Amino acid sequence: MRVTVLGAGSWGTTVAALLCRRDHEVLLWARNPDVAAEVAEQRSNEAYLPGSRLPARLRATADLEQAARHAELLVVGVPTAAFRETLVNVRPHLAPWFPVVSLSKGLERGTHLRMTEVIKQVLPGRPAAALTGPNLAREIMSGQAAASVIATEDLTVAAALQREVERGLFRVYTHHDVIGCEIGGAFKNVIAIATGIAEGLGVGDNTRAAVMSRGLAELTTLAVAMGGEATTLAGLAGMGDMVATCMSPQSRNRHVGEQLGLGRSLEQVLGEMRMVAEGVKTVATVVELADRHGLHMPIARTIHDVVNGRIRAADAYRGLRGAVPAGHESQPG
Amino acid sequence: MRVTVLGAGSWGTTVAALLCRRDHEVLLWARNPDVAAEVAEQRSNEAYLPGSRLPARLRATADLEQAARHAELLVVGVPTAAFRETLVNVRPHLAPWFPVVSLSKGLERGTHLRMTEVIKQVLPGRPAAALTGPNLAREIMSGQAAASVIATEDLTVAAALQREVERGLFRVYTHHDVIGCEIGGAFKNVIAIATGIAEGLGVGDNTRAAVMSRGLAELTTLAVAMGGEATTLAGLAGMGDMVATCMSPQSRNRHVGEQLGLGRSLEQVLGEMRMVAEGVKTVATVVELADRHGLHMPIARTIHDVVNGRIRAADAYRGLRGAVPAGHESQPG
Repeated sequence: MRVTVLGAGSWGTTVAALLCRRDHEVLLWARNPDVAAEVAEQRSNEAYLPGSRLPARLRATADLEQAARHAELLVVGVPTAAFRETLVNVRPHLAPWFPVVSLSKGLERGTHLRMTEVIKQVLPGRPAAALTGPNLAREIMSGQAAASVIATEDLTVAAALQREVERGLFRVYTHHDVIGCEIGGAFKNVIAIATGIAEGLGVGDNTRAAVMSRGLAELTTLAVAMGGEATTLAGLAGMGDMVATCMSPQSRNRHVGEQLGLGRSLEQVLGEMRMVAEGVKTVATVVELADRHGLHMPIARTIHDVVNGRIRAADAYRGLRGAVPAGHESQPG
Repeated sequence: MRVTVLGAGSWGTTVAALLCRRDHEVLLWARNPDVAAEVAEQRSNEAYLPGSRLPARLRATADLEQAARHAELLVVGVPTAAFRETLVNVRPHLAPWFPVVSLSKGLERGTHLRMTEVIKQVLPGRPAAALTGPNLAREIMSGQAAASVIATEDLTVAAALQREVERGLFRVYTHHDVIGCEIGGAFKNVIAIATGIAEGLGVGDNTRAAVMSRGLAELTTLAVAMGGEATTLAGLAGMGDMVATCMSPQSRNRHVGEQLGLGRSLEQVLGEMRMVAEGVKTVATVVELADRHGLHMPIARTIHDVVNGRIRAADAYRGLRGAVPAGHESQPG
């Protein structure tokens, strides 16, 4: 199968490399011609996956039309802020019918749409799926095991995509609850910022675990309000992804939180990062959705206030301690 | 209020110290007279809480009858293997009516009973509660924040206990689902061993997160089969406690798993530990319960096989990768 992966960040490049191992003809599109040339000629992508050797059969281009014409399966791993525009640009060059898989974890600003909803708007008439779960790119590139979830409403399509993507230690599960999976993937980045702040402030593992636990409760509340299923968030695409992101020093969103907790400003932190920390943008959308649905989401609101400079990270943390109860837990006395 | 805490391990001693800050008259019972003397005279318990200074008003004894006669509230933090025997020994000396709170996270061997069930059998006619949640003792002793759960069927009793226990940064939530809370507290130690093995084998954060995610699914399956509620396990007493235990280098059960993952034998590892790793004993009970209820619990069964020497930790890990799906996730293809 001819597969195109749009976006040569760490995860897009990793998925492209995984797909090569499945014997697909994979073409990776990079916005930056230097990155495309580096991947094609030197088998590396030092800016995003330092030290990794990419498969010899992986091809790369900075020509979006060429990338679109190649695709029998389109995989989209560009940042959510560029997601719609990229799809609009490939649309005239795409063959019909073939499915589109989103790798991007976030919600569209303004519209509040999930990425598979953006796919359905821009490229109607095709199966739209999300690949999500606990997937730290560098670990997978180095050959370590990981479990992933492919979410799409039609489980026949999900099973077909699963067969095309799964390989060796990279296990792929299927899931029909696209809403729950995408909300989990987007919102967990906000919880990772919250956990990172706790880390930066040195408040200990009990509190980090409590923030993750209350964070999962908020995440589930939002997903259910939007039509997802609570059990989805207890699985790989919710809790699993959140825990990996909150635990790993590789996580960009946790890194942002940690630096904020250490007393640095958001501008300083983001100014030093090459990669996008989606949670910084997602949190505004999450708060708008919480308002629309009338939801009590103190962690999201607090992180939103920190990101917008209304409160300091150290003060934010005081607020987090009274966060939303999970299940039938009471409020603290 | 006069409070007796039975068991001067790290958590029993920590809870006794917390209760002193609430101005209760706290008497801590230690099985070992040397420990009781050290707590009473030197304000320390170096074997279990190295470096911690205990409150001046904390009293200690090795006389169980004296401890029992003191109690208007009895808190029991002895290992589960000694739980019933200790209650039988205090019974003749206890005043009636007063509540009994379990700190112990495990199930009774043979009977499969939860600790509040043991309390009800041995000391009927009193409220029985469990104090649980993400509570790494040394962090709390050092004054860091933590969130805890007091679980008892009667929420009026729970609220009264909450008022007696909560203090400052130690937040206490109430919960009516005693079954879910106690199964979560017991079984999370098994998942901590599994996560520790993954850590010892160096398999990465994606896989650790996946094991925790699938582990939470097993834990929820068992709790629901025994009459608990799924939402309980998504909260502090399930996911929160599990995540803290799996993340923290302070966790004994994680430590046991990590050493097994490094290729050492269970005898070697346990021989070096002063404290009890409850998960090693809990796993046999969990597997018996899984058989009785006909549940698919591959992580528990695999850890049981490792603990009993039937398979090596490195091979166990291969088995874990095919663990139980959560919610509506499919099996991997």
